[in-house]
Amino acid sequence: MKASVGVIGGGQLARMLIPPAVALGIDLRVFAEVPHSAAGLAVTHVGNYCDPAEVLDFAQAVDVVTFDHEHVPPSVLSRLVDSGVPVRPGPHALRFAHDKIAMREALSDLGVAVPEWRAVSTVDELADFLAGHNGRAMLKTARGGYDGRGVRVVTDPHDAADWFASLENHSGEGALLVEELILFRRELAQLAVRRPSGDIAIWPVVETIQHAGVCVEVIAPAPGVTGVVSGAAADIATELATRLDVVGVLAVELFETDDGRLLVNELAMRPHNCGHWTIDGSTSSQFEQHLRAVLDWPLGASGSRDPWSVMVNIFGGSATGPLVDRYPRALAAHPLVKMHNYGKSPRPGRKVGHVTAVGDDLDEVAYQARAAAAFFQD
Amino acid sequence: MKASVGVIGGGQLARMLIPPAVALGIDLRVFAEVPHSAAGLAVTHVGNYCDPAEVLDFAQAVDVVTFDHEHVPPSVLSRLVDSGVPVRPGPHALRFAHDKIAMREALSDLGVAVPEWRAVSTVDELADFLAGHNGRAMLKTARGGYDGRGVRVVTDPHDAADWFASLENHSGEGALLVEELILFRRELAQLAVRRPSGDIAIWPVVETIQHAGVCVEVIAPAPGVTGVVSGAAADIATELATRLDVVGVLAVELFETDDGRLLVNELAMRPHNCGHWTIDGSTSSQFEQHLRAVLDWPLGASGSRDPWSVMVNIFGGSATGPLVDRYPRALAAHPLVKMHNYGKSPRPGRKVGHVTAVGDDLDEVAYQARAAAAFFQD
Repeated sequence: MKASVGVIGGGQLARMLIPPAVALGIDLRVFAEVPHSAAGLAVTHVGNYCDPAEVLDFAQAVDVVTFDHEHVPPSVLSRLVDSGVPVRPGPHALRFAHDKIAMREALSDLGVAVPEWRAVSTVDELADFLAGHNGRAMLKTARGGYDGRGVRVVTDPHDAADWFASLENHSGEGALLVEELILFRRELAQLAVRRPSGDIAIWPVVETIQHAGVCVEVIAPAPGVTGVVSGAAADIATELATRLDVVGVLAVELFETDDGRLLVNELAMRPHNCGHWTIDGSTSSQFEQHLRAVLDWPLGASGSRDPWSVMVNIFGGSATGPLVDRYPRALAAHPLVKMHNYGKSPRPGRKVGHVTAVGDDLDEVAYQARAAAAFFQD
Repeated sequence: MKASVGVIGGGQLARMLIPPAVALGIDLRVFAEVPHSAAGLAVTHVGNYCDPAEVLDFAQAVDVVTFDHEHVPPSVLSRLVDSGVPVRPGPHALRFAHDKIAMREALSDLGVAVPEWRAVSTVDELADFLAGHNGRAMLKTARGGYDGRGVRVVTDPHDAADWFASLENHSGEGALLVEELILFRRELAQLAVRRPSGDIAIWPVVETIQHAGVCVEVIAPAPGVTGVVSGAAADIATELATRLDVVGVLAVELFETDDGRLLVNELAMRPHNCGHWTIDGSTSSQFEQHLRAVLDWPLGASGSRDPWSVMVNIFGGSATGPLVDRYPRALAAHPLVKMHNYGKSPRPGRKVGHVTAVGDDLDEVAYQARAAAAFFQD
């Protein structure tokens, strides 16, 4: 029986795989980019994930390779697959998480609703799209964007001159993604997990709250969500996980429009911030399920343990020292709140932890989580 | 702010400290006796815990020292304290967990109800005790017993000739503990945790079910327990933790007699099998609370998350291979049950893991936990 999982990337997602690996008796091995990473306890190799030889060598010692992030070059992934090591999710699925234009094409092909979009390579093409959309649009780099990076609202085609110039310097990345600005009621996210045999588990659809393009809070389940909407969200995630052959966790970020439609915004094929609440709020966390899925073990139940869970991210502030310095006051004030410290040096804007509260009363649960997190903000 | 905890002993209790250490950002360092121990991921030193120099060297790198087991010699503990490293619980408290006769003396001094007992050094003294107790008694070695070892029922004073002979060969351990046989209705256990400042948290009192002196199952809370009994159990644990100056988790094993009295059977001053259910069943697990306590951080809430939790131990059987070999059937049949694999080679009778189920209906919860555990028994 195989029970050794290699993770490329040593960030907090790899770190949060450690507890379920300990519980399940999984030999977790992490390939980190730098010493003293968040996943340090499980790191067995520090190196460059763009170097195929290093990655192949790491992979030889594990039963399956999976990921903390989406930055491993496709050429390295292909080499891994060619070497016979199971790579989960596989490169054919990861392509749609790596490249937003490929993702939009795949979603459009599958008939999944997305914002109107176009791949644009020139200022003129962007101008044309803007002209057809009231002069405002969302522009995204096809690759490498996250947490608000690689995304901007444009009203003048020349707003993006720098990105078009940069395109010319990067062979292989020939276009930007431009989308209609969606007047959404709120943002939702649907988390799913799929094992190679095809079994899928679905968590309750959640509401995600963003500031400046960065997720700051997640409420599970999304308050007031109708059965129609939650069913539609589950259907979208199930369809995408199956049709794209995703193995492991799939996070689908959604816009809920004022007229009640769901549009797919982004996909991630790894544990995701929108699912951190599952550690304390679900029978099976996204981290446990990801491990079970990539090992092709039976999945656990993914229901909520409490009527409400609220997760609030903690960001490094301008004067934040180690988070533990604030434990005496924060933990004393909030004995019901669960603290998650990523072991990272706080820098302004950097996600360094999160807190989760659960319970029967949403107002109280949200208050507890927000108030506990506030102890760690400046 | 201090956040580095050293643990002497590399067994499953140290292993189960890893997940909360990861969540809280604690630098956990384990001193193991052998390579490839259950707590392997956090092991920073493999050596002999009876060697003061080794232990002192290990302790220099941490903020506080605590324990996975109760076998560290008092002389080594004293050396640690003399070196200035906080040792929690301290040797003055641990003495009562190490030595059952010292424990009985302390409990009697505190006026806590215990079975009638006597320290006996000779066959004649044992014969005298038997004569006063209907010819039957429970005999225990003062030190080193656990999981049914060092405990036997005697009806003839010569039943213990070997232990008396062994006493003569061990200086410093001059007596055996003999106790009246209690006709108990059932066994309960009360778990508490205390930080140096004095704050105490109490979990619900549980029922423990033993086979051949070994705990096989724990039901939380103890079914049908009255408010009077649960209050009395909480009072006993609070009193003992305070009066004995315990820091960290204290487990108090209790007899509930047919006439409704509680008698203290054993004490342990570390996370304990009777509290494994808290990982999945309580807002704060005994492992998280132990770390918070020894670091003198505020304690978390220790209530149950569900009306019922049932924990069933998994023992190595005569033909048991790695537990993971049985996951495909066990996990598929019980998606709601949480699996805990200690990463130990199964040997007959060895505790190698446990499962916990939680929920609203005790019959269903107990069925789920027992049926899941049965997949791992021969």
